[in-house]
Amino acid sequence: MTLTGQLLIGQQTLTGDRDVIHGINPATNSPLEPGYAGGSAEHVEQACALAWAALDRYRETSLEARAKFIETIAGEIEALGDELIDRAMAETGLPRPRLLGERGRTCQQLRLFALTVRAGEWLDVRVDTAQPQRQPMPRSDLRQRQIPLGPVAVFGASNFPLAFSVAGGDTASALAAGCPVIVKAHGAHPGTSELVGRAVARAVKACGLPEGVFSLLYGSGREVGIALVSDPRIKAVGFTGSRSGGLALIKAAQARPEPIPVYAEMSSINPVLLFAAALQNRAEALAQGFVASLTLGAGQFCTNPGLVIARKGPALDAFIGATTELIQRSPAQTMLTPGIFNAYESSVNALAENTRARIAAAGQRATDPNQGQAHVFVTDAADFLADHSLQAEAFGAASVIVQCASDAEIRQVLEQLEGQLTATLHLDDEDLQQARALLPTLERKAGRLLVNGWPTGVEVCDAMVHGGPFPATSDSRTTSVGTAAILRFLRPVCYQDFPDSLLPTELKHANPLSLRRLLDGQRETAKNAE
Amino acid sequence: MTLTGQLLIGQQTLTGDRDVIHGINPATNSPLEPGYAGGSAEHVEQACALAWAALDRYRETSLEARAKFIETIAGEIEALGDELIDRAMAETGLPRPRLLGERGRTCQQLRLFALTVRAGEWLDVRVDTAQPQRQPMPRSDLRQRQIPLGPVAVFGASNFPLAFSVAGGDTASALAAGCPVIVKAHGAHPGTSELVGRAVARAVKACGLPEGVFSLLYGSGREVGIALVSDPRIKAVGFTGSRSGGLALIKAAQARPEPIPVYAEMSSINPVLLFAAALQNRAEALAQGFVASLTLGAGQFCTNPGLVIARKGPALDAFIGATTELIQRSPAQTMLTPGIFNAYESSVNALAENTRARIAAAGQRATDPNQGQAHVFVTDAADFLADHSLQAEAFGAASVIVQCASDAEIRQVLEQLEGQLTATLHLDDEDLQQARALLPTLERKAGRLLVNGWPTGVEVCDAMVHGGPFPATSDSRTTSVGTAAILRFLRPVCYQDFPDSLLPTELKHANPLSLRRLLDGQRETAKNAE
Repeated sequence: MTLTGQLLIGQQTLTGDRDVIHGINPATNSPLEPGYAGGSAEHVEQACALAWAALDRYRETSLEARAKFIETIAGEIEALGDELIDRAMAETGLPRPRLLGERGRTCQQLRLFALTVRAGEWLDVRVDTAQPQRQPMPRSDLRQRQIPLGPVAVFGASNFPLAFSVAGGDTASALAAGCPVIVKAHGAHPGTSELVGRAVARAVKACGLPEGVFSLLYGSGREVGIALVSDPRIKAVGFTGSRSGGLALIKAAQARPEPIPVYAEMSSINPVLLFAAALQNRAEALAQGFVASLTLGAGQFCTNPGLVIARKGPALDAFIGATTELIQRSPAQTMLTPGIFNAYESSVNALAENTRARIAAAGQRATDPNQGQAHVFVTDAADFLADHSLQAEAFGAASVIVQCASDAEIRQVLEQLEGQLTATLHLDDEDLQQARALLPTLERKAGRLLVNGWPTGVEVCDAMVHGGPFPATSDSRTTSVGTAAILRFLRPVCYQDFPDSLLPTELKHANPLSLRRLLDGQRETAKNAE
Repeated sequence: MTLTGQLLIGQQTLTGDRDVIHGINPATNSPLEPGYAGGSAEHVEQACALAWAALDRYRETSLEARAKFIETIAGEIEALGDELIDRAMAETGLPRPRLLGERGRTCQQLRLFALTVRAGEWLDVRVDTAQPQRQPMPRSDLRQRQIPLGPVAVFGASNFPLAFSVAGGDTASALAAGCPVIVKAHGAHPGTSELVGRAVARAVKACGLPEGVFSLLYGSGREVGIALVSDPRIKAVGFTGSRSGGLALIKAAQARPEPIPVYAEMSSINPVLLFAAALQNRAEALAQGFVASLTLGAGQFCTNPGLVIARKGPALDAFIGATTELIQRSPAQTMLTPGIFNAYESSVNALAENTRARIAAAGQRATDPNQGQAHVFVTDAADFLADHSLQAEAFGAASVIVQCASDAEIRQVLEQLEGQLTATLHLDDEDLQQARALLPTLERKAGRLLVNGWPTGVEVCDAMVHGGPFPATSDSRTTSVGTAAILRFLRPVCYQDFPDSLLPTELKHANPLSLRRLLDGQRETAKNAE
């Protein structure tokens, strides 16, 4: 397929009329063809009009038809073959195995949402049947289902050009919920975005759906993004990226005459607690696991372990020593974009200049453009507590080790943390009691708690939570990864005393979809009818 | 029990140090003793400190203990006997049967939440078991449950001194979720609030719970309210009241360093569609139902039918004629407070002076203070579409009938409506096709759709939705009535590779709570263990 550099509005391709974006190969700093001229407010208007026109028809597709559509997207992405992987490698500097894995994850994620759609539990059907004889007042027949919020704007992330981008988790879950989607492509991988966007558009056509179910826009600066979030036909926003970017979208969404929810996954430093016995028993193994997780993908993960917390002492010294050796041997790695590389350098420089922290180790120096050098810093709890800037996210392979003088100080450090995506506990049996005592604090701080693992690597499954209290995300009640992500794009509607012929399929008396409804207070166990 | 006029902070009673509020008997305009001196920011601080201290213990109470506590509250409220009803009558002007019914509803609501707590479905337990052999990467053991957001601030409503007040739906659902609650009493019924607040505090004590689980504050003006919503330990807000009041709380909640969700139920005019055949066949019966719903409780319901939409013609003329006769015979009714009465008068005067509407009927004149006179206005669709002020809520027994020239105009009127709590369809068999065509629009506009009923009267059950798109509420994804209200106060946490001994009870391998978990993608049907 030849890349066109065009916007995709429904089934139509259009050339933008704003500044041209080029993908850049971060390994060489060389721009990639074609250029992508940005869209304008009028392009946003067209895409929103199409999405709105598609809404009522798309949201009433059968569960089977919607699931098939989502599976068709996965098939179309796989059919792109090496062209997709090659282009993504060129635009991101990520190695082939990583991108092959990410493509697999993206397609598995789509297929998992297809299963979720078919199972229909997200419809949360509740039926309270009429009680005409009830005293003092009869009860009406009341039936509840979930319907989609409406068209959703999705902002692709820089660091997952497939799994958190055009057909990533936000798009998959919004489409699964029955919401048309308009994606604003991330400027770091416009060609990858075009390839995937066209795959989605082919699936829309192949499944005979209204074209407005999917559009893909480009734009440098914030014109397209703010116009999208401000359009009255957009009813929710999915975003993965920086804190400043997320906050700008939230502000725009709240300034609307009708405010809308923004699901922004923003910043997290993912504290790792090393408990005393674990540290005592296996400082070196912990250092190996830590450095592997920290430097994976040049540290460019939302779940990168940016903070380590432990009691001061010989065991922690051993961990720091082993970490230092491993970091010093770590090669510099090409980062995703010159912008991300520069931001990482600034963050590391700020830590290096901060008198409350010292550099414990730095990785090998860069030999090529945009290569990030791993860094580990050490500070004391008192310094950490005194300087909020030490918990700012440094997006890349940088981490701060906080040495605590007491268990009480560990708790203090935890209580002062901002909201996090993850918190990790490394513990042995002797540590269980202390870990148990800290659990309530950790539950209040993070969306996912791990024991004896590392936070990088986010499984796509039913039980995953990729979310957490602000500023990890803008809405701690939700997850952006895993099947519960569909719940973000739904709202309940109750139907009172409807004649059966007027009820939507999932609420009809005969239960034609064989849903396990909450029927008069009891969960249906078999797939029985009323 | 002697009313004290004091704040209730945990188990402690304290006298406020701000302006004194008196309940006022609206039937006589006479103030009621005692006075309630308002709390200050320091009282908010004390209540929040206690709530925070109670959080981790309260949220880990067993389902059975929490359910018992909620049932104990219901018992304590019933034990207040006539004193509660007498005081509520004096403070609100509402008749005894209504308050007896509201007390019954309030206690039934508490008991329903106790059942919901015990059933445990709100925990939404999801388990994905480990797959150590999976290629290319093993899968961890992942388990998800819901935990409470944290302490919740509840703002009581004026129009339901029991069911939407101190121990109303917001408090019941927040306590059910495991959140400590701090109530800001509505100034219209401080004595009723004190009685119920003390009943809740007795239940806290009787159940051996930490005292910070419940506090009750008073305050005129916005000092207490804004301080509460701004306190970092408050993690969510429940509010039922005016649009301006709700928007002020939302603004304060969003201005926090950590923004929090506000569940504000604000304004709705609850459109009623009269379809052609129904109108033709039973104009008079419809008028009777309409006037009964409109004038119920002096029209002081969020679900009051404030808008009627129908095709112009003889059948609608007959409906308007019958409505006019009934309204003219409607006695004026004492409204809840002088403030609400004055606001109603202003709204009615604004409609009366609006050249785009005409008065069709006015009820009997007032003979006593604060009596609202029912009003029905008539306008044409073109006028309604041209003047947004015609869809402003007039809280009280006032409604606007919109005459449409065509089905297309009916659709236009519906599409231009703001978000609503309810939309009602009156239809006969011949109307089904037209109703079906309008359903997608109505679903997008309202949280509850009714056929051949009236929107006043909100059943407390599993399937109820008392919610809807902005400005009906601030969060269309939720309901403030019915068991799904508990979902507002929860967030998911994922536990990865936890040893069984460290897992919370509901996530343990053996499934000791016999929950129907989502286990490896399948809903457990029997209450089996792994």
